Amino acid sequence: MIVSALLTSVGINTALCVLFLTLYSILRKQPSNYEVYVPRLLVEGTSKRRSHFNFERLIPSAGWVAKAWKLSEEELYSSSGLDGVVFMRIITFSVKIFTFAGVIGIFVLLPVNCWGNQLQDFDVANFTSNSLDVFTISNINSGSKWLWVHFSAVYVVTGFICLLLFNEYKLISSRRISYFYSSKPQPHQFAILVNSIPTSSSSISDSVDSFFKELYPSSYLSHVVVRRTSKIRSLVNDANNMYKKVAQSRPDPTKEKIKQGAFSRLFHQRNNHIERYEKQLAEIEENVRLKQSEASLAGEARAAFVFFRTRFAAAAAFHLQQSVNPTQWITELAPEPHDVYWPFFSESFIRIWISKLVVVLVSIVFIILFLVPVVFVQGLTNLSQLKTLLPFLTSILTIKFVSQIVTGYLPSLILQLFLQLVPPTMEFLSTIQGYISHSDIEMSATTKVLWFTVWNVFFATAFSGSILSMASTILVPTSIPGKLAIVVPAQASFFITYVVTSGWTSVSSELFRIFPYIVNLITRLFKTPDDEFELPYMPYHKDVPRVLFFGLLGISYFFLAPLILPFVLAYFCLAYIIYKNQFMNVYAPRYETAGKFWPTVHNSMIFSLVLMHIIAVGIFALKKLSLASTLTLPLPLLTLLFNEYCRKRFLPIFVGYSAESLIKKDREDQNDPTLTEFYHNLVDAYKDPALVPIQYSSNNDSLSSPLISSA
Amino acid sequence: MIVSALLTSVGINTALCVLFLTLYSILRKQPSNYEVYVPRLLVEGTSKRRSHFNFERLIPSAGWVAKAWKLSEEELYSSSGLDGVVFMRIITFSVKIFTFAGVIGIFVLLPVNCWGNQLQDFDVANFTSNSLDVFTISNINSGSKWLWVHFSAVYVVTGFICLLLFNEYKLISSRRISYFYSSKPQPHQFAILVNSIPTSSSSISDSVDSFFKELYPSSYLSHVVVRRTSKIRSLVNDANNMYKKVAQSRPDPTKEKIKQGAFSRLFHQRNNHIERYEKQLAEIEENVRLKQSEASLAGEARAAFVFFRTRFAAAAAFHLQQSVNPTQWITELAPEPHDVYWPFFSESFIRIWISKLVVVLVSIVFIILFLVPVVFVQGLTNLSQLKTLLPFLTSILTIKFVSQIVTGYLPSLILQLFLQLVPPTMEFLSTIQGYISHSDIEMSATTKVLWFTVWNVFFATAFSGSILSMASTILVPTSIPGKLAIVVPAQASFFITYVVTSGWTSVSSELFRIFPYIVNLITRLFKTPDDEFELPYMPYHKDVPRVLFFGLLGISYFFLAPLILPFVLAYFCLAYIIYKNQFMNVYAPRYETAGKFWPTVHNSMIFSLVLMHIIAVGIFALKKLSLASTLTLPLPLLTLLFNEYCRKRFLPIFVGYSAESLIKKDREDQNDPTLTEFYHNLVDAYKDPALVPIQYSSNNDSLSSPLISSA
Repeated sequence: MIVSALLTSVGINTALCVLFLTLYSILRKQPSNYEVYVPRLLVEGTSKRRSHFNFERLIPSAGWVAKAWKLSEEELYSSSGLDGVVFMRIITFSVKIFTFAGVIGIFVLLPVNCWGNQLQDFDVANFTSNSLDVFTISNINSGSKWLWVHFSAVYVVTGFICLLLFNEYKLISSRRISYFYSSKPQPHQFAILVNSIPTSSSSISDSVDSFFKELYPSSYLSHVVVRRTSKIRSLVNDANNMYKKVAQSRPDPTKEKIKQGAFSRLFHQRNNHIERYEKQLAEIEENVRLKQSEASLAGEARAAFVFFRTRFAAAAAFHLQQSVNPTQWITELAPEPHDVYWPFFSESFIRIWISKLVVVLVSIVFIILFLVPVVFVQGLTNLSQLKTLLPFLTSILTIKFVSQIVTGYLPSLILQLFLQLVPPTMEFLSTIQGYISHSDIEMSATTKVLWFTVWNVFFATAFSGSILSMASTILVPTSIPGKLAIVVPAQASFFITYVVTSGWTSVSSELFRIFPYIVNLITRLFKTPDDEFELPYMPYHKDVPRVLFFGLLGISYFFLAPLILPFVLAYFCLAYIIYKNQFMNVYAPRYETAGKFWPTVHNSMIFSLVLMHIIAVGIFALKKLSLASTLTLPLPLLTLLFNEYCRKRFLPIFVGYSAESLIKKDREDQNDPTLTEFYHNLVDAYKDPALVPIQYSSNNDSLSSPLISSA
Repeated sequence: MIVSALLTSVGINTALCVLFLTLYSILRKQPSNYEVYVPRLLVEGTSKRRSHFNFERLIPSAGWVAKAWKLSEEELYSSSGLDGVVFMRIITFSVKIFTFAGVIGIFVLLPVNCWGNQLQDFDVANFTSNSLDVFTISNINSGSKWLWVHFSAVYVVTGFICLLLFNEYKLISSRRISYFYSSKPQPHQFAILVNSIPTSSSSISDSVDSFFKELYPSSYLSHVVVRRTSKIRSLVNDANNMYKKVAQSRPDPTKEKIKQGAFSRLFHQRNNHIERYEKQLAEIEENVRLKQSEASLAGEARAAFVFFRTRFAAAAAFHLQQSVNPTQWITELAPEPHDVYWPFFSESFIRIWISKLVVVLVSIVFIILFLVPVVFVQGLTNLSQLKTLLPFLTSILTIKFVSQIVTGYLPSLILQLFLQLVPPTMEFLSTIQGYISHSDIEMSATTKVLWFTVWNVFFATAFSGSILSMASTILVPTSIPGKLAIVVPAQASFFITYVVTSGWTSVSSELFRIFPYIVNLITRLFKTPDDEFELPYMPYHKDVPRVLFFGLLGISYFFLAPLILPFVLAYFCLAYIIYKNQFMNVYAPRYETAGKFWPTVHNSMIFSLVLMHIIAVGIFALKKLSLASTLTLPLPLLTLLFNEYCRKRFLPIFVGYSAESLIKKDREDQNDPTLTEFYHNLVDAYKDPALVPIQYSSNNDSLSSPLISSA
């Protein structure tokens, strides 16, 4: 790829970014868009729908940037919880890394690379004066002593990143502990979820009661048996939809005035509709009630939430194997009540195990099969290949501008569109894997998407999508460094473009929220203004892997092609402002895991480092500086040892709380007079929403529909 | 190797076995050998040293075989604990496997192998009519349909072994649980060991007290801080040695009569000696007392045994992370008091971690470097190679009998002698790895020795000791089945000899106890008859890996060279009788892990199965029956899944006891009046033997030396 193609791509994307930001700053001021751009403020009541027109509303402004910039970590913590803070820390952490690496890369490595003349010597045929490869390590002469600069840079940057990682892990651990200390009594701290309850002659509820009363007579409080409610859930969904239909069809006093003329002829017909709908709704309602009372009597699943008087008792019950048979009475920490994922309540050990195995298998197959579109996209970067493949395009492709767009921009755009499918798919797979909470599902989906991205974007691109070549490399571990050293630097320009197109555009379209905006535009016509709108939740499983992947790109290319660093840094700076703004205005916290996904981030960084080291080993060997290659070998080992130490030092804090903190909290509560009431409410906290009585009284319009957490 | 060489080897070893057994049956009847052959009976008082001579004593008899045969599992359990029972179950389990596999192998596979004529067709040059290879799978024609018989046999035997493994795991788990239920209150059930106690201004003892009193006010009982006693320990050792010297030098009323004449001239000189020794002993004694009182005041290590009122509280303290910082206040289950390994008391998290890493590294280096003697031994099997290497031996080697001994017997004998060094080395390495109990050290040494044996005997022999060839195979995982399929069958005859020489001889020399016998013979002259003799302990770390290795050989060669099966079966039958006899007469249980080493056995069996499957995949591919090769692929996966299930189903039972059983036991004890006294004695139970006051009063002969558990 040549410099002009890169410039085209950078130009287009900068323009797009500016366009998005400008549009955003105008659109967010329109009251009709408040639901899209400032839903949080709307719900909190700080932003009112001003209906009077104001000329100022049409002028783009940058006030939101300043506001987002000023948002302190404490404010973020109080509004979006620790998860929001930890997410932002990924970004600030990356900014620090790439500022440091960027300075080294641009002011030290880049000049050294340009100084070399390997490419001029050997590659004269293909060499064009503006090839980007001049800026990469490929341009350094074989055996050149200048490579020691790269060698030192690798060591220095690894040390710096490890230091930062350690501090960050430490800081987030301590935040997590202080979050726990400052938290009020919460139902999930006193509860565990038990599954694989053995079936006996008595009911599940009775056996749970007798089992835990026997074991923990003083600390056992009560329990709630999970019930099979999939049928009721679909009925409740039907009822909700029907209710919406009725509500929409019903004459609306505000809209009536405007639309009276147009719809007057349909009025009578609509009245008939309403009657019919209301009748149906009443039927479904009756049916739901019937099924609910049935389920309350029968339909017990082999799982239950068990409540204890103290946090310590709950934790002990979680950590110790309860039953003599380790596959029965399996305990898990209970998720927060609104975090519980009710639909797929896996009941038995063997089913959970098998579903986990199947999902892992399916995920692997999915990841591998996804190479097909990736290969196609890769074909696009190779213009001559494209011409032979699709000969009718030849005439268009000869136009310089078109060909530059096709090679420089189109591939990563198409890849990007395909990749949109991945997070939902992975979330679905995690859903059926047997996790019991939304947070666990998202966390598992995050890991899957991350693996997917690393494999299908990084490695597939590096190996030009040849599964065979990838497989043969992986199956011969010793050949990995050498192979990577050849293929990875070759794709430097693609990944620079990727950062620009995928990174910059995705983050600014995140701000612009294009899909929600369109959806809002369409539904606005059919909605009654009183309709509840749900606050959107931050899609961690989509955004965390993306942010981490740019970190991986930056780290692994840092010494190969330092030119990528400014682009990566720009991405993270953009992300810093935009995500802060989104946390402030758009996303509501759905649950609080207290930064439980940080270990994933840490592991991903360690993976990036080790990948960089492996490439370095290969590159130095390739450049015939075998001493440097050998001396790089301890680096991945040291990094892995460092990781192992961090795992021992910090990971337990992310799994459960220590006896010390649990007992301290329990003791604080002892004198709390509200605790009796809290105990009393525990049972109600974990109630399957499908079993909450519904009522859409057809006469009573003011009753809003109960909030049903749908699948 | 040809049949006659095998027969030579079998002949020699059968003769040796018979010799050992005959000698044993005579020698064990001599009262002077009771300490070697029936020390347990001697201690229990069932066997008395009959001093009157009896002619019967010189006639070999087989009565002990019948006695050993009759010993029931319950008797074994009561005399040697659950560990003894589990060890014997390894052998009975193996007998079952190899009876089943033997029937299939000898009556189905062997005729099929002989039926083939691959070797006659292709190998006429090297073919001698009595080559053992005719009985192996190598003789089957390429692409022959008869290979499906082997294919089915692999599936059937795998299924049979997995079924047995499952039943055995289940049975041992339930034995373990019922052992726990039937056990009396034992100190280690109520104790945990805490290490990495943070140092503060107050003493360790105070901070342990305040920490656990704060956390568990109702269940915390007391604690014992571990003290640094390495100096005292060496002093105590000195004192013991000195005491022995004094005791030996002192005039002995019984021996005096016999030796009076011979030694009367030395009498005066000896008296001087005694006086000097006694003076020295008194000095050391004084020194020990001084150091002991010093250590009691200072010298606290950062570790302590902490005692609780209930088993459940101790288990909860073990399972939950205690401190907010996971690298402090690390808890372990306490070992039995006499199982504690006092000398190397690792105190801090980081030291334990580093020593573990270093030991793992050293073990790996040791395992790899050990290939050198193995390579030399392998050279011996190749006669022509030996002749070029050591030309002066040519004349001797041309004698047929000598050459047959050299090729058939010597290699495995030398290997065997070298291998004697391994268990002590591995035990030493495990010792410095930071384990706190003899049982853990032995368990870890068992695993190391097992890996050592698999690598240095199985793989090194298979690859003829070429590290390069081994490394290149391992580094290219796809080539493993093909490589193994070539090299493993080629060594069939070596391993048959190995079973005969190493297996048969080692197990019968185990009975004969050659080293203890010689030691006894030498020391008997210098010992006073009242001298205490220590009961020997079963060296599990030596015998378990050996028994398992023969299982591995049998399983992996079962379909390649079924001829190995009768020899393996004979080994296990011999082992069955001999180990039963040894448990009854010789070995005392040193500690009770309640069969905690069974998971190692299970894993080893799974490894053997997967190894067999990998070889099968390679063999079928090599024999050009690729369909069978492909159809074998699911087998290792299924086996690993089965293993994973067993891990989930049974392994937790071997790690700790369930809350259900702990609480049940605690409740049983509630009304036990002796419990107060038991609590009172807990502190004394975990007392460093180096701190026990010593007294060798020079005037008082009747005081026996205190039993010091030496390293």
